[in-house]
Amino acid sequence: MDLKLLDIAPFLSKRQKYLVAVSGGADSISQLHLLIDSGIKNIVVCHLNHQLRGRASNADARFVEKLCHKLNVKLISESVSVRLLMKSEKSSLETSARKARHNFFARCAKAEKCNRIILAHHADDQAETALWNLLRGSNGVKAMNVLQTHKIGNQTLTFLRPLLSIRRYQLRTYLSKNNISWREDATNAEPFTARNRMRNEVLPLLENIMQRDVNSNILNQISFTQENNEIVKWAIERAQVFDPQGRLHVGALQKIPKSLQAAVFHDYLSENGIIELSRELIDRCCNLLNTASSSSVNLPRDKILRRRAQRIFL
Amino acid sequence: MDLKLLDIAPFLSKRQKYLVAVSGGADSISQLHLLIDSGIKNIVVCHLNHQLRGRASNADARFVEKLCHKLNVKLISESVSVRLLMKSEKSSLETSARKARHNFFARCAKAEKCNRIILAHHADDQAETALWNLLRGSNGVKAMNVLQTHKIGNQTLTFLRPLLSIRRYQLRTYLSKNNISWREDATNAEPFTARNRMRNEVLPLLENIMQRDVNSNILNQISFTQENNEIVKWAIERAQVFDPQGRLHVGALQKIPKSLQAAVFHDYLSENGIIELSRELIDRCCNLLNTASSSSVNLPRDKILRRRAQRIFL
Repeated sequence: MDLKLLDIAPFLSKRQKYLVAVSGGADSISQLHLLIDSGIKNIVVCHLNHQLRGRASNADARFVEKLCHKLNVKLISESVSVRLLMKSEKSSLETSARKARHNFFARCAKAEKCNRIILAHHADDQAETALWNLLRGSNGVKAMNVLQTHKIGNQTLTFLRPLLSIRRYQLRTYLSKNNISWREDATNAEPFTARNRMRNEVLPLLENIMQRDVNSNILNQISFTQENNEIVKWAIERAQVFDPQGRLHVGALQKIPKSLQAAVFHDYLSENGIIELSRELIDRCCNLLNTASSSSVNLPRDKILRRRAQRIFL
Repeated sequence: MDLKLLDIAPFLSKRQKYLVAVSGGADSISQLHLLIDSGIKNIVVCHLNHQLRGRASNADARFVEKLCHKLNVKLISESVSVRLLMKSEKSSLETSARKARHNFFARCAKAEKCNRIILAHHADDQAETALWNLLRGSNGVKAMNVLQTHKIGNQTLTFLRPLLSIRRYQLRTYLSKNNISWREDATNAEPFTARNRMRNEVLPLLENIMQRDVNSNILNQISFTQENNEIVKWAIERAQVFDPQGRLHVGALQKIPKSLQAAVFHDYLSENGIIELSRELIDRCCNLLNTASSSSVNLPRDKILRRRAQRIFL
C-alpha cells in the first residue's frame, strides 16, 4: 500500500508553511519523507537534542542535520539537558522532556512566524495513549487529536498529527521499500519511563495472551467512544435544557435520564472553563435538581453553581 | 466495613429460594457465608468437581460437603472430567469448563425447581472481564450483568451476581475477620488459561507501572459506558425514526448524525435477533440512507434489510 499523506490528512496544504518535529527515529523520519513526497515543501525541521543518551544523542542531531542538508530543508536544532531540568523542576522525565520540547517548539514558532507544528504520532502511539488514559481513569477512551491547539504563555501552537491513523508497520514498510535509513533510539527499548514499559512490556504481553492485534481493537474503541460523544452532544441539544439566557432549566432537566443530566452538567461546566470535574462533583451538581436539597455547589476555582427560581447557573 | 449483602444486592429476597454455586475458593465461600449472615436460608449449594487438579479437586469437594453439613445447607455435588469434554468438543479449557458448569446448573435447576443461580463474581473479576472484552474488540467496555438470563435448551436460567460491586480485598477482609477458611485453587496461579494470565501477569504489571489501583479505574469506565448506553437509548427514542408499522423512516434517519444512525441500525437489528453485527455491516446498513445506492443489505442468517418507498425494514 502506498501512503498518500494528503489523502490521509486533508487538513494539510501544499501552500502552507509547517514546522516539522524530527527526532531522527523511524516515525519522524518517515513522516518527513512522506511530507516531501506529497509536495509539502515549505517546511522547517525542528530537532531538540534531549542529551539523554550522550554520544548517541549527538549522532541523532548530526543525522538530522545531514538529512536536512540533503533534502534541502531548513533546520532549527537545539540542545537541552532534560536531566538537569528534571532535577530543577522535580518532575518526571516524561514531563520535563515534554515541557522542554513544547518550549522549543514555541521558540521555533516565534522565530519562523509559524504556529503549525507537525508531530509524528501514529496509530500505535494512539492505541497506547488510549489504554494508558483508560487505566489512569479518564472518562471514556481518551486519545490524541489530529488537530490540537496548545497554549504556551501567550502563544498558541497548533499540533498536527497526520500519521494518527497510520500503523507503525505501515511506516516501517514505507521506509524499507524506499530504502530510507533512520536512527534507532536505544532508550525506547529501556524500562526508562512508564510509557516505555507500556509499549515494551504490557502490549507485547497482551498480544501474546490474546493472540490478536490488540492495538487495532483499542483503535476501534477510540472510534466507538468518539461516535458516542457525538451522540451525547446531540442528546444534550435535543434535551433543550437551557433557557434563553443560557441558564439550565430545572424542570427540563428533571425530565431526562440521570445519565444525561450528568452529561449536561459535565458539558455546561467544561464549556464554562471548569475542567477538573470528578464523578463525585458531577453527582453533587445533579443533586441540585432535588429542590429539597442544598441550592448551591462549590466548584473548583472559587466558582459556585446555584439553583434559584427553577434555574441553575454559575 | 461490614458487608451487608441485602443492601448491596436489593434484588435478593429472604423469602426466595436460590441455587448457590460454590467452588470452595475464597470468593464463593465468602459469598455463601454472606448469604447466610443476611438471612437468606432457602438455598441449595451446587458444587461441580471439574477434575482438573486430581486429589486437590476431590479435597475441594469434601471441603464444600463438610461446610454444607456444618451450615445445615443442602448440597448437590457432581463430578465431570472437563479435560475429556475439551477433547471431545475440541474447544478451549475455559469454554468446556463453562459449558460443563452451565449444564450442571441446568440439571440442578430442574431438580430443585429453581432457576435462580447465585454466582460469586466480584468487582475485580468484573474489571478483568471488561479489559478482556475491550482488548478482544467489543464495542464499548462490556462487562458482566448483576442479573443475566441464560438459555440452555428450553430452560431459562437467571444468574445473579450480588458481589459484582465488591472488591476482592473486601471479601478477604471479611473472611479473615470472621475466621472463615477456604480452599486455595492452585490452578488460579498457573498460566493455564488466557484469563489466568490476564489476572496474574497483566494486571499486576499494570498496577506496578501505573502505580495505582487500575481495577478501580476500569470499573469507573464500566459505569461510564453504561451511562453512555442509557443516553444512546434515549437519543434513539428521541430521534423518532420509526413509522407506526415499526419500520425505519429514511427521511427521519437522514436528519440525525451519522453516529446516531449507526446506533439506530445496531439497536434495530439486535432487537430483531441479529447479533453478529460488525462495524462494516452497520456501515453498509447506513449506506441504505443514500437513496442512490443499493436498496438492500444481506444480513447473517439469510435475512435481508431492504429500503422501499422511504422505509427500511427486514
